[in-house]
Amino acid sequence: MERVEIEKSAPQPVLVVGSVGYDDIETPFASDTRILGGSASYACLASSYFAPTRMVAVVGNDFDPKDRQRLSNHGIETAGLQTDESGPTFTWSGKYLEDFNQRETLDIQLNVFESFKPVLPDDQRDSRYVLLGNIHPALQSHVLDQLEAEDTFVAADTIDLWITTERPAFIELLKRIDFLVINDSEAELLTDESNIIKAGAALRALGPKQVVIKKGAHGAYFFYEGGLFALPAYPVTELRDPTGAGDTFLGAVMGYLAAVDRKDVPTLKQALLYGTAVASLTVEAFSCDQLESGGAAMIASRVVELREMISL
Amino acid sequence: MERVEIEKSAPQPVLVVGSVGYDDIETPFASDTRILGGSASYACLASSYFAPTRMVAVVGNDFDPKDRQRLSNHGIETAGLQTDESGPTFTWSGKYLEDFNQRETLDIQLNVFESFKPVLPDDQRDSRYVLLGNIHPALQSHVLDQLEAEDTFVAADTIDLWITTERPAFIELLKRIDFLVINDSEAELLTDESNIIKAGAALRALGPKQVVIKKGAHGAYFFYEGGLFALPAYPVTELRDPTGAGDTFLGAVMGYLAAVDRKDVPTLKQALLYGTAVASLTVEAFSCDQLESGGAAMIASRVVELREMISL
Repeated sequence: MERVEIEKSAPQPVLVVGSVGYDDIETPFASDTRILGGSASYACLASSYFAPTRMVAVVGNDFDPKDRQRLSNHGIETAGLQTDESGPTFTWSGKYLEDFNQRETLDIQLNVFESFKPVLPDDQRDSRYVLLGNIHPALQSHVLDQLEAEDTFVAADTIDLWITTERPAFIELLKRIDFLVINDSEAELLTDESNIIKAGAALRALGPKQVVIKKGAHGAYFFYEGGLFALPAYPVTELRDPTGAGDTFLGAVMGYLAAVDRKDVPTLKQALLYGTAVASLTVEAFSCDQLESGGAAMIASRVVELREMISL
Repeated sequence: MERVEIEKSAPQPVLVVGSVGYDDIETPFASDTRILGGSASYACLASSYFAPTRMVAVVGNDFDPKDRQRLSNHGIETAGLQTDESGPTFTWSGKYLEDFNQRETLDIQLNVFESFKPVLPDDQRDSRYVLLGNIHPALQSHVLDQLEAEDTFVAADTIDLWITTERPAFIELLKRIDFLVINDSEAELLTDESNIIKAGAALRALGPKQVVIKKGAHGAYFFYEGGLFALPAYPVTELRDPTGAGDTFLGAVMGYLAAVDRKDVPTLKQALLYGTAVASLTVEAFSCDQLESGGAAMIASRVVELREMISL
């Protein structure tokens, strides 16, 4: 696996915590069963294009050794990928409707994920770039408790489920993170603001200094101290499977930041372009297939296109 | 009325053809009756912030002389604003629902607009920047037949009604224009492409070299030879009345182009930022009130904000 070439690269490791699972996915164009998925899989595959990436997750007694190998082959450190022999791996089954705007969860089996307690390997507690993928907010906080570095940059993602059912725990988490990435409907659910500009300000007031609100095919807004950046979506013409797009996006963003070891606003803007480019690979093919095979050159050329899309 | 200050300004006149009418508008926040509206009113008020603007439209025997004065006061040349004494002015009555995404037409009375034949005053036939606002496509073509300059830049807007009922006439018009501005649902209706990137390419294949597809609060895409520009929306926090936003946008774009007397791609991109800034004035207040009163300084400062929103 070849890394994306970046000027002034000084790669730090990225720690990613999240889910690894098997998905059954149905779209208007195709369907497949038991494909490698989960927030940590997508985020780690994306991050590893830029920086050494440490995966912290759990799988069950049915996890295919080939899938562990698949992750390792992409340069992912799987020492923190626990195997829980007491049961099978987390599974999710979902269906996308005609326009891909709506996703229906057909079945979800937490399995070993239900009793998952993320434990960081001792030599990963010094991680300075930490991506808290979508898991229970109390577990996201539990990861933060194990970190030892002084200047850790923490990014978090979530889903509407936690905002609805675990709001206090999520609000607590927000006070401890630097960078929140959330979609527009989740932002409205959390802040009760239907205006996205006001929602962004309200989210920043809850803790994270930097907030990205994603708008799907309409791109995203990046809210930071005193400013707003309008990020375009990559102009995808053949949408095939949006599963994992958000995890891919954030994985690549964190990978880029770790690669240059900076987290200032101009660097974050560049990172967001890389996140957008890598996420476009994910949505153009089923599962993480094209994310895995797309390659560094395609990512770099899509970032050039994105830069042109906003250049005057 | 003070013009927006623009470097290298060499203002050419803009000719605008469209409707002038009285609107009754109801929004979740306010309602008002018999307010000055119509595509030509919004477009001319916007354009006149940048360049001398010639209005070609029709009003009826009930048109208030104060409204004509109001247009003149904003620097609009009303020699081409015919008065048809045979009946009353065009009226439109509409209602916006809670989220402003849906608009319901409650009543429409074409009145004198029904028999309107746009006639260009002799001394306006040399216009080199021509905005064909939303009227019957055959009338838009009729305006083009009266033009005499060699290098006229023609922009057109439309609505779904004409795409549905007058498709052949609209397709003919498309072959004669340089710049089409259309919203996303109209683009899909015309091209049968739900993917906006493909729709943009399909529209360019129908004639206009430059195409803008508007996405409301999500900004717009500008398609040109070999490129794509992602235009952000101005971050409006208090949406009050979206009526006339599209007409305002295109009016300001054409005003800017005429002000610098250029129509190359980099100039068009700048023009689109000005269009976005001026349209934001329209939507923040009822009717054309803030469009009229907003002023050159506010427009200039919003363009600076928009540039920052896409700067890396």
